[in-house]
Amino acid sequence: MPDIGIIMGSDSDLQVMKEAGEMLDRFGLSYEYTICSAHRLPQATAEYAQNAAARGMKVIIAGAGGAAHLPGVIAAYTLLPVVGVPIKSNTLSGIDSLYSIVQMPKGIPVATVAINGSANAALLAVQILALGDEKLHTALQQYRQEMAEGVQKKDRILKEMGVEDYLKEKK
Amino acid sequence: MPDIGIIMGSDSDLQVMKEAGEMLDRFGLSYEYTICSAHRLPQATAEYAQNAAARGMKVIIAGAGGAAHLPGVIAAYTLLPVVGVPIKSNTLSGIDSLYSIVQMPKGIPVATVAINGSANAALLAVQILALGDEKLHTALQQYRQEMAEGVQKKDRILKEMGVEDYLKEKK
Amino acid sequence: MPDIGIIMGSDSDLQVMKEAGEMLDRFGLSYEYTICSAHRLPQATAEYAQNAAARGMKVIIAGAGGAAHLPGVIAAYTLLPVVGVPIKSNTLSGIDSLYSIVQMPKGIPVATVAINGSANAALLAVQILALGDEKLHTALQQYRQEMAEGVQKKDRILKEMGVEDYLKEKK
Amino acid sequence: MPDIGIIMGSDSDLQVMKEAGEMLDRFGLSYEYTICSAHRLPQATAEYAQNAAARGMKVIIAGAGGAAHLPGVIAAYTLLPVVGVPIKSNTLSGIDSLYSIVQMPKGIPVATVAINGSANAALLAVQILALGDEKLHTALQQYRQEMAEGVQKKDRILKEMGVEDYLKEKK
Amino acid sequence: MPDIGIIMGSDSDLQVMKEAGEMLDRFGLSYEYTICSAHRLPQATAEYAQNAAARGMKVIIAGAGGAAHLPGVIAAYTLLPVVGVPIKSNTLSGIDSLYSIVQMPKGIPVATVAINGSANAALLAVQILALGDEKLHTALQQYRQEMAEGVQKKDRILKEMGVEDYLKEKK
Amino acid sequence: MPDIGIIMGSDSDLQVMKEAGEMLDRFGLSYEYTICSAHRLPQATAEYAQNAAARGMKVIIAGAGGAAHLPGVIAAYTLLPVVGVPIKSNTLSGIDSLYSIVQMPKGIPVATVAINGSANAALLAVQILALGDEKLHTALQQYRQEMAEGVQKKDRILKEMGVEDYLKEKK
Amino acid sequence: MPDIGIIMGSDSDLQVMKEAGEMLDRFGLSYEYTICSAHRLPQATAEYAQNAAARGMKVIIAGAGGAAHLPGVIAAYTLLPVVGVPIKSNTLSGIDSLYSIVQMPKGIPVATVAINGSANAALLAVQILALGDEKLHTALQQYRQEMAEGVQKKDRILKEMGVEDYLKEKK
Amino acid sequence: MPDIGIIMGSDSDLQVMKEAGEMLDRFGLSYEYTICSAHRLPQATAEYAQNAAARGMKVIIAGAGGAAHLPGVIAAYTLLPVVGVPIKSNTLSGIDSLYSIVQMPKGIPVATVAINGSANAALLAVQILALGDEKLHTALQQYRQEMAEGVQKKDRILKEMGVEDYLKEKK
Repeated sequence: MPDIGIIMGSDSDLQVMKEAGEMLDRFGLSYEYTICSAHRLPQATAEYAQNAAARGMKVIIAGAGGAAHLPGVIAAYTLLPVVGVPIKSNTLSGIDSLYSIVQMPKGIPVATVAINGSANAALLAVQILALGDEKLHTALQQYRQEMAEGVQKKDRILKEMGVEDYLKEKK
Repeated sequence: MPDIGIIMGSDSDLQVMKEAGEMLDRFGLSYEYTICSAHRLPQATAEYAQNAAARGMKVIIAGAGGAAHLPGVIAAYTLLPVVGVPIKSNTLSGIDSLYSIVQMPKGIPVATVAINGSANAALLAVQILALGDEKLHTALQQYRQEMAEGVQKKDRILKEMGVEDYLKEKK
Repeated sequence: MPDIGIIMGSDSDLQVMKEAGEMLDRFGLSYEYTICSAHRLPQATAEYAQNAAARGMKVIIAGAGGAAHLPGVIAAYTLLPVVGVPIKSNTLSGIDSLYSIVQMPKGIPVATVAINGSANAALLAVQILALGDEKLHTALQQYRQEMAEGVQKKDRILKEMGVEDYLKEKK
Repeated sequence: MPDIGIIMGSDSDLQVMKEAGEMLDRFGLSYEYTICSAHRLPQATAEYAQNAAARGMKVIIAGAGGAAHLPGVIAAYTLLPVVGVPIKSNTLSGIDSLYSIVQMPKGIPVATVAINGSANAALLAVQILALGDEKLHTALQQYRQEMAEGVQKKDRILKEMGVEDYLKEKK
Repeated sequence: MPDIGIIMGSDSDLQVMKEAGEMLDRFGLSYEYTICSAHRLPQATAEYAQNAAARGMKVIIAGAGGAAHLPGVIAAYTLLPVVGVPIKSNTLSGIDSLYSIVQMPKGIPVATVAINGSANAALLAVQILALGDEKLHTALQQYRQEMAEGVQKKDRILKEMGVEDYLKEKK
Repeated sequence: MPDIGIIMGSDSDLQVMKEAGEMLDRFGLSYEYTICSAHRLPQATAEYAQNAAARGMKVIIAGAGGAAHLPGVIAAYTLLPVVGVPIKSNTLSGIDSLYSIVQMPKGIPVATVAINGSANAALLAVQILALGDEKLHTALQQYRQEMAEGVQKKDRILKEMGVEDYLKEKK
Repeated sequence: MPDIGIIMGSDSDLQVMKEAGEMLDRFGLSYEYTICSAHRLPQATAEYAQNAAARGMKVIIAGAGGAAHLPGVIAAYTLLPVVGVPIKSNTLSGIDSLYSIVQMPKGIPVATVAINGSANAALLAVQILALGDEKLHTALQQYRQEMAEGVQKKDRILKEMGVEDYLKEKK
Repeated sequence: MPDIGIIMGSDSDLQVMKEAGEMLDRFGLSYEYTICSAHRLPQATAEYAQNAAARGMKVIIAGAGGAAHLPGVIAAYTLLPVVGVPIKSNTLSGIDSLYSIVQMPKGIPVATVAINGSANAALLAVQILALGDEKLHTALQQYRQEMAEGVQKKDRILKEMGVEDYLKEKK
């Protein structure tokens, strides 16, 4: 029974969406990857969303590009919070994906993150689950702490090495 | 048994969508208006699309605004041609509606017309039905003829009256 | 102790943000309105976010327009889920607000809803809280049910009255 | 006598437009490729459109980029349904092509598909022709079925292999 | 025999296009207003353009909105310089008109001016005709001179009156 | 001898630009309003910029709309810091003004503020002058303090009155 | 004494602008390339424009990118027709260049062509000069003729070879 | 004690931001690079800004991409002039960065330069500091002089070599 469902409209979205799973791994949350399509498999999409809560899922992360209907269609069939990830598209850089996901009508929200922001979608799921889970809350604090230290460390190295050497090292 | 289904996501789209019916009236085609919502009534939307052909419909005209999923969702559940009308939205002028409708993935097309272009959606339906209907074809020719004469008449009046008087008359 | 904090950058956002409170009223959730500003009151903003969890808040809804930093700044200072509402701006229709809120960097997500979509921000908060609250879950089901019936009723009336009368009635 | 005309403004559009022919091949429909230009060969373009119906064409698929007038000009000279394919342009990613094709004035519609969406343009033509053709209708059903199975198969393989192996395999 | 043809796609463009005529009046150039439509009257449009030079026209000013093909279609049928005026559209503020006019392919240029910039279209025509016309050249110099003095006068009045009184006066 | 020059391309910008003067009044800085035009009065514009430093100006605030060249042209002729104010335009909402001002090439910067942000342009000038002026620095601190208190007061009133009464009062 | 001046803001524009010269070569017109900069060499730019007519130039073609002021500044200092070429920019694909060039205020027009459309800028210059030059007019007719034949030839080859072979050949 | 602080949200901005330091080197100004993050290190960011003036900084240059809050957050905590550099982002080309930085609310300005325009940010800082520094003023004059001569030299070489050879040489 996965805590979180990660669904995407096409396997071309997988490269981006795998960052969601990697982030959830870090927090010890279980998840399941699904390729489905609001347009090519509309009924399977509906069933996925309708069964998600009964299967134990708490949050659904849905990624899609172009006329990105998947997150909204999922949201229409479940009461679970749905996090939408607009995938960068070939022609319009993901602006089409973003508008198709974020501009949902009153009544059916989709929690939208940045274009290709699947890691943040996972973090949002973690923050939601941490509301009732002390251990997850502590893990989140630690994640933030490490992230802060990571930036501080980079700053320290930059100050020691100078710009030129830092950029050389980085390559 | 309506020839054409006109469906929209909200009754706020009706003012725009009624031009579709008015155009179909002109060609003596029967149609049915439906307010449904891909997000608030997903199952009814699916059923509408699944039953459309059996109910005798030949073309479905679907109008929606914002994250405008209705045309695409309808298209996913039927083999009938679906014409999508992006409705001008309050915040993004209909660019969100346009992208959500036109950028459909390979496999499930939506025939998209201009923002608020419901009259043209109806004409497209007429042109499709005229492929196998001599009378409709003749009616279309006549429509084009009258439209052309309408422009010519305006041009003639403008040349007779001059710009100032023409603009005064028009108000 | 409010369940939910509703914060906005300026009192000019209040007209939009009040729909959030109205939606929460419907679900019997407590909330608190705050006018603060990430730029004019940066320390108060930081303190608000840092104290939110201790004050019993579970979700923060933050609305802002233009260079809309408030949701992201709040998110930086709390582990609670932050829902961002891009307010329609005078000059760029809220595209500036949307981009400033949704395009957050990896590590600090903001759950973004539609431009001016404060009612959906509230619903998202309800859906999050309903994960651990049977009664809220039932209320959400009922809300969806009523929303669906509302659309169905409009459709029925439209079919009975016809387009012209429906539009007259509506005015 | 081709069922469908595929016309494009320049041979630089051919790489995209050939997907239309490949899709039509799948359905056993005959078609003819034409390079013409609304601007460089305006009279030939007009004649092409005027003769299309008499030559047995049922639908015209027209692709163009930039100030993409070809679909609209074709539509002005024929009563056949015209499907417009906005070609991705070098400088504006096809937004110019999309607006030039989709924003047609009242009276002369162009059925617009996604930027570079020539395969969907062909499918739209198939859906139109299937209205009066049982065999085509069955072929469309089968196409949808295979497409659905294709997604399901990918989902199954992803679940068996896991994300890492799936992505490796795919390369 | 008009020096300049002013053509527009619809009489709804007339309010904007009449500034072109007013500017030409100032320079004593003759002109003719025509309402035509690249889509509703394609052949008349072609003939207009083909005959323009023989009728004595030197420059054609063409205004159109939305999928604004008129200037490009005119340009395809004549060797005269064609000045395109993108008309501000209801839904996309004239961005569609601008892209449809300015992004012409290699071989057939349209000299595009600002959205609704019909007065400047006329000035461009005057500047072109002034190349071989001393009197027109002098009139242009005088126009520039008066325009410069107009700005200087406003500046002087503003400095005398102060901002508040200037703005009151202006209303 | 004004401390600051406020220049604009047209008197239609004055309504927006007068907020710059009002802000400077608050800080007791002297300024001079000028209407000039990079296009209609290019030489006067050049002279204005060339003489500004000698006339005692320290910062120039330049507002312009559309193809907004004024700030960049001023910046080309002076070494004083130039603050550019993009004026909201009729057709493109000031996006044209913003891009024309902010996207300056390497070598000649313009300090750009928000569309219609003339008050902030003045504040930027104050912040620059306060670098060498203790009194101005104190006045800025006080301005910030009052601004912060203004937001806090609104927040307090909102909490006392509630949303409905606050909004009624505000009208 | 060059017939036409080709001026650009930076030598990074030269790759695009050289197509203008190549087109003019075809028509036997003389021209002169100049690198100048409205911002880095404002006085030289002004002088260039002021002297252009006296040096025998009839049309000036000005290319620039980003905050592309060069065409407008040139136009402010001369009565010659100025053709503006928006250069595709690194960050905004030339939308900034296009808006900065085309949105000129009333009084000072710039004849704008497509982004990177320097060949069309040259053709526009030829069309302008052909108004008083029979030989140029004939050359233009021939150019159009050859262009048309070029398209027809490609169409013929495509029909002979088929899509696959045509595309292979083309590479 | 650095004259100028250069701060950026991530080390991925360093490649762009290093041009700021290189420009400052040219003018002999001291500066300090800092990697900080308004979201990952909000308190450190606040402290940096609060201490900047006391540490002797006169201007802060802040670069950030995406939801680019860093410059605005810095500006909220200091009275020093803050120059914002929008960094070109992967998905939206820096339009998101630009809007997030430039559209600041009344009261807290950020002096915004072009996308990736960090060299100009440094020049702006130099121009500000040159207001009270004769030597810096002279250095700026010399910089402008050299820049002008650089363009003139390129123009001379182009005229000597011709386009083809110039472009070959340049590669």
